[in-house]
Amino acid sequence: MIRSLRTASAGVAALLVFGAGAAHADEGMWTYDNFPAERVKAALGVTIDRPWLDRVQAASVRLTNGCSASVVSKDGLVLTNDHCVIDCVQALSSAEADYVKDGFLTSARSEEKTCPGMQAEILVSIQDLTGQVNAATKGKTGLDFVKARDEVTARAEAEACGEDPRLRCQVVTLYRGGQYKLYTYRKYDDVRIVFAPEYGAAFFGGDPDNFNFPRYNLDIGFLRLYEDGAAASTPQHLTWVARAPREGEATFVSGNPGSTDRQMTVAQLETQRDLVIPVGQLQRSEIRGRLIRFSGESAENKRVATDPLTSVENSFKVFFGRQFALNDPAFMDAKRAAEAELKAKVAADLALAAEIGDPWGEIATAQKALADNYVRYRQIEQGAGYISELFQYARALVRAAQEREKPAAERLPEYADTRLALLQKELLDPRPAEPALEEMYLSFWLSKTREYLTADDPATKLLLGRESPEGMAARLVSGTKLGDPAVRKALWEGGLGAIQASDDPMIRLALKIDPAAREIRKTWEDQVTGPTDRAAERIARARFAVYGDQVYPDATFTLRLSYGKVAGWTWRGTSVPAFTDFAGLYDRATGAEPYELPPRWVEAKDRLDPKTVFNFVTTNDIIGGNSGSPVVNAKGEVLGAAFDGNIHSLGGDYGYDGTINRTVVVSTAAATEALQKVYGRTALAKELTGR
Amino acid sequence: MIRSLRTASAGVAALLVFGAGAAHADEGMWTYDNFPAERVKAALGVTIDRPWLDRVQAASVRLTNGCSASVVSKDGLVLTNDHCVIDCVQALSSAEADYVKDGFLTSARSEEKTCPGMQAEILVSIQDLTGQVNAATKGKTGLDFVKARDEVTARAEAEACGEDPRLRCQVVTLYRGGQYKLYTYRKYDDVRIVFAPEYGAAFFGGDPDNFNFPRYNLDIGFLRLYEDGAAASTPQHLTWVARAPREGEATFVSGNPGSTDRQMTVAQLETQRDLVIPVGQLQRSEIRGRLIRFSGESAENKRVATDPLTSVENSFKVFFGRQFALNDPAFMDAKRAAEAELKAKVAADLALAAEIGDPWGEIATAQKALADNYVRYRQIEQGAGYISELFQYARALVRAAQEREKPAAERLPEYADTRLALLQKELLDPRPAEPALEEMYLSFWLSKTREYLTADDPATKLLLGRESPEGMAARLVSGTKLGDPAVRKALWEGGLGAIQASDDPMIRLALKIDPAAREIRKTWEDQVTGPTDRAAERIARARFAVYGDQVYPDATFTLRLSYGKVAGWTWRGTSVPAFTDFAGLYDRATGAEPYELPPRWVEAKDRLDPKTVFNFVTTNDIIGGNSGSPVVNAKGEVLGAAFDGNIHSLGGDYGYDGTINRTVVVSTAAATEALQKVYGRTALAKELTGR
Repeated sequence: MIRSLRTASAGVAALLVFGAGAAHADEGMWTYDNFPAERVKAALGVTIDRPWLDRVQAASVRLTNGCSASVVSKDGLVLTNDHCVIDCVQALSSAEADYVKDGFLTSARSEEKTCPGMQAEILVSIQDLTGQVNAATKGKTGLDFVKARDEVTARAEAEACGEDPRLRCQVVTLYRGGQYKLYTYRKYDDVRIVFAPEYGAAFFGGDPDNFNFPRYNLDIGFLRLYEDGAAASTPQHLTWVARAPREGEATFVSGNPGSTDRQMTVAQLETQRDLVIPVGQLQRSEIRGRLIRFSGESAENKRVATDPLTSVENSFKVFFGRQFALNDPAFMDAKRAAEAELKAKVAADLALAAEIGDPWGEIATAQKALADNYVRYRQIEQGAGYISELFQYARALVRAAQEREKPAAERLPEYADTRLALLQKELLDPRPAEPALEEMYLSFWLSKTREYLTADDPATKLLLGRESPEGMAARLVSGTKLGDPAVRKALWEGGLGAIQASDDPMIRLALKIDPAAREIRKTWEDQVTGPTDRAAERIARARFAVYGDQVYPDATFTLRLSYGKVAGWTWRGTSVPAFTDFAGLYDRATGAEPYELPPRWVEAKDRLDPKTVFNFVTTNDIIGGNSGSPVVNAKGEVLGAAFDGNIHSLGGDYGYDGTINRTVVVSTAAATEALQKVYGRTALAKELTGR
Repeated sequence: MIRSLRTASAGVAALLVFGAGAAHADEGMWTYDNFPAERVKAALGVTIDRPWLDRVQAASVRLTNGCSASVVSKDGLVLTNDHCVIDCVQALSSAEADYVKDGFLTSARSEEKTCPGMQAEILVSIQDLTGQVNAATKGKTGLDFVKARDEVTARAEAEACGEDPRLRCQVVTLYRGGQYKLYTYRKYDDVRIVFAPEYGAAFFGGDPDNFNFPRYNLDIGFLRLYEDGAAASTPQHLTWVARAPREGEATFVSGNPGSTDRQMTVAQLETQRDLVIPVGQLQRSEIRGRLIRFSGESAENKRVATDPLTSVENSFKVFFGRQFALNDPAFMDAKRAAEAELKAKVAADLALAAEIGDPWGEIATAQKALADNYVRYRQIEQGAGYISELFQYARALVRAAQEREKPAAERLPEYADTRLALLQKELLDPRPAEPALEEMYLSFWLSKTREYLTADDPATKLLLGRESPEGMAARLVSGTKLGDPAVRKALWEGGLGAIQASDDPMIRLALKIDPAAREIRKTWEDQVTGPTDRAAERIARARFAVYGDQVYPDATFTLRLSYGKVAGWTWRGTSVPAFTDFAGLYDRATGAEPYELPPRWVEAKDRLDPKTVFNFVTTNDIIGGNSGSPVVNAKGEVLGAAFDGNIHSLGGDYGYDGTINRTVVVSTAAATEALQKVYGRTALAKELTGR
């Protein structure tokens, strides 16, 4: 599945590579203010005008857990993927009620429950800030550049949103620094779960079928936006159609692709290939192994580990694809050729050459600093946060308390005033902590830190003292009270005094390693991200100068529109059709996980139309973060929700090949049929279809 | 630890690279019939003559579990590493008696127990076979070449050893086909365990300290060779000295380095870097994670998983080092330069060029076939054998039964008549099967096969049918009787009829997938190993022609001698001393695993001389398989047993750098002190020291 923001898509060895500048047919994740309507007209024969764009934009939703979605009724009903609501469903479950396994079904609005930590956002305006940022950062380098940029950014966000609690403002860096834009969103911080199918229906075929096709997944989930305790009024919604998509039909995916690396230099790609991805994958494989065994230990362990394991396995496959794309010499040769072409064109224009300088060389130098500091940065600053929720709470509470003492201009950017509202929500919303999982994660983090930095490294000694990773993890988890939202609230509101007075072992740990973590972060920003971002800006300028504006920016988890059509593909002589149907689902079911159908589906078999189009593929260019995106036709009707790419699309992080890259979609036709005949959700079906 | 044959050593990113042809100072794993005595005289000022070589050779032992050792008393006493006897100790342990954890201590010969499956071998003669093999393979390619070579090899072995049960004959391919030599060994198939320390003493510091230095490990084990039920008479043994080694003292390591890849072409190294090592490491990381969790589930699980986990973690570190050596562009550039130099010298000699042709190009072509077939070959032919003992039994029983029906010349080489004795011993010796571990391994193998080949691949379907990996693994392990040596014996003796009539589920599985496994093996030998070996022979000829005989062959788990001296090293301005002592051990102990001392060591602290040299480092060039090798001085006295390399030596698979690569040794001084004062093994100490 093209999962959340943290797991952008990647590349297989067989992938062909896109050219240097201008995008190929069906390629691109375009911003709404630079959509290539003429190219679309030529390629697909359909007209996309400003009203169409405005209408689809107004119904396109970003979910802060890293997904996309769309408004599909006038009463705030939102379509997304099951795998985008599974963290919500998991949080609402317990040993007594496993909604992940059994599905979360409501019969009335009163049964809809708030998803902890979730916020939905709809883009309302885009404003150019490039000039302001460039003026503020002119002549600055390294850490000075980072600070100046972050400061002007934070100020612009604060000024634009003011105190309006319904808005969120965010400065977006496009083209790796070529443009800065202020995006203003209408935000909804009360998002409730309406419907999620059983895990076995949403993710039938599990990890083995993930990123493959044919697929048979009801990977849909419904949420509802609430305002002042009632369903939000959303007149600008997409029209739901229950008919099947047609071969060759034009399709548009409107969503928030998380990140791509198509504009990375060769030196950056080499560092990803040789260091960053391998280390990540090796650690990911080990935690995957631990999670698999953990899951097998008891039914309750399996329940709490379902989503974490799915997430790790999905990321593993994504980065496996990336690694093998970058390991392919032909792929890298094409990247080298593209870079050489751009450099040559710059060099041929003396004025441009003088303006641009040698950003490629500067980035290559920064890669050396990256290699020297990467493991420490990963283990100490990125820390256990990416998997241990309790440590993430502690780190955020400690940092927020420290940063809120400072003037806005001096803060770490993630603690700027405009960012605090969402952080507070994420921190304080109730969510069950799973001690057994947490202990495993922490023990893993501590042991990997010792392994990668060595037992004699000062940071390892600071972290562990004379404790073992296992002993320390057990002590932290049994001693901390951060699983209790009231405790977190007290620490949040108590500020630095409360933090410093706290004897919570997780808070003490976060405090203890904070100086070391900030130090490596400073080195990182000064020697790695600062110089890289500064240089990338100039490469972006070079690209604009050489190729014009018919280029799209790397993905940034902001709203983009991709175009394409319903189409299968051919690989090594074998043609893969564009559609699957319900009959195929029943054929594939073996009764053994992950090919085991939930009881409702077994029971409903004879009621379903076996020819219903279940999943289908399109040529749209998407990536992780696009999960849940509406797939709409030229009339702006929603035909389905994108939930995956095919195996070839794993190269999408670095390039797009329209002959074999495919988006995998669950059809509204199948969703309608299932809601009515498998789940008996007639009210929901009626809200969608009007019937 | 520089573990068994299966885990040869590897390389870190910082490693410098050796030159093209002639070896550098202290470099080389030399055969006893081509030892560079003059170079040693020049480098170390000591004289190594034929009598010295004969004496040390006669006391040098190869253990068939992938280790090295030495005879250290006239009564067959053998010194090796604890980690070379741990599989024996594990096999002799039970839930009631955990000799791995507590140590295996004997007070009398009657307490010495036979190690299942273990055979010790002492090299008695070397005979050149190169001409015969070359004559038999002349003009042949691909599978024909492989068959012709294997046939002449099997015949030579059979003729040389005859029916003598005390001999083992083995044709060794040196210089990747540049030479073929017939090695004749005196073999001992009754090897008994005399002494093994506690795991916590042998592997103090565990995985975090592994391949690091300073170290504090009593990584020694003692075995005894038996003949006709009594201790073997071994007058040609090394002299044990209890004094500490001296800084700068010349040292010689006599042992069996498992394998190196120093003569691989750049194309081969790239395939290792881009495909073989990454896939291996990703799978290894996951099984590591599963084993770690498995170990934590119960004391009994921890007991049975101690050695498997240690082994996996050791391999992980070895291949981590290899991967990052190959990911270092400077390292690969040096390899490219060396290859270009050899090619240029060949091209400059028209006759030589005509003889050699383009073996580099042929190997590059074979790499493409390797990439196309690697995953299938790994999963289906290499199979679960490398971790599941029960499947390994089934595969060997099935194949042996099939192959023994054929004339000798048509068999797979591992089932040639001369190889059957050891195979039979390994198969039929009693050894506890651990069902929980086996089930985990099998489930892992089946799930990875489905993952890497996809659920729809014919081989996956053949393997799994409609079962899940977990369900099938449980069924296989609960149903098989192969854990019982009597059942294995009946199948071995019953031959093909008994195999075909067996309803044992593991035998049925091995039979079911055998045709697919043989098919991919045939493809592999025809397109990968055949062309590669054929081409590598010609590269070896080119290297001899250009650089003369002052080169040593890649390691082949046959007897080699390396020279060097006791010396610390300096890395990035920090000097690492050559010695550690007992005082350092007690300083490093925290009481938490893996820095927890066994009770005997806690209790003995005041009796030990804290200044006793515990571990030390030398410049000798060694690799996995050398574990347990005696480290002898110029007088032929044994100063210790090699048990590890430092972190820089992880590049040793591809090259050697005498400025930073180090062998790590446990001293005989420490062993003597510990045997007397920690373990109270006065009889054993007396047998060693005469006192």
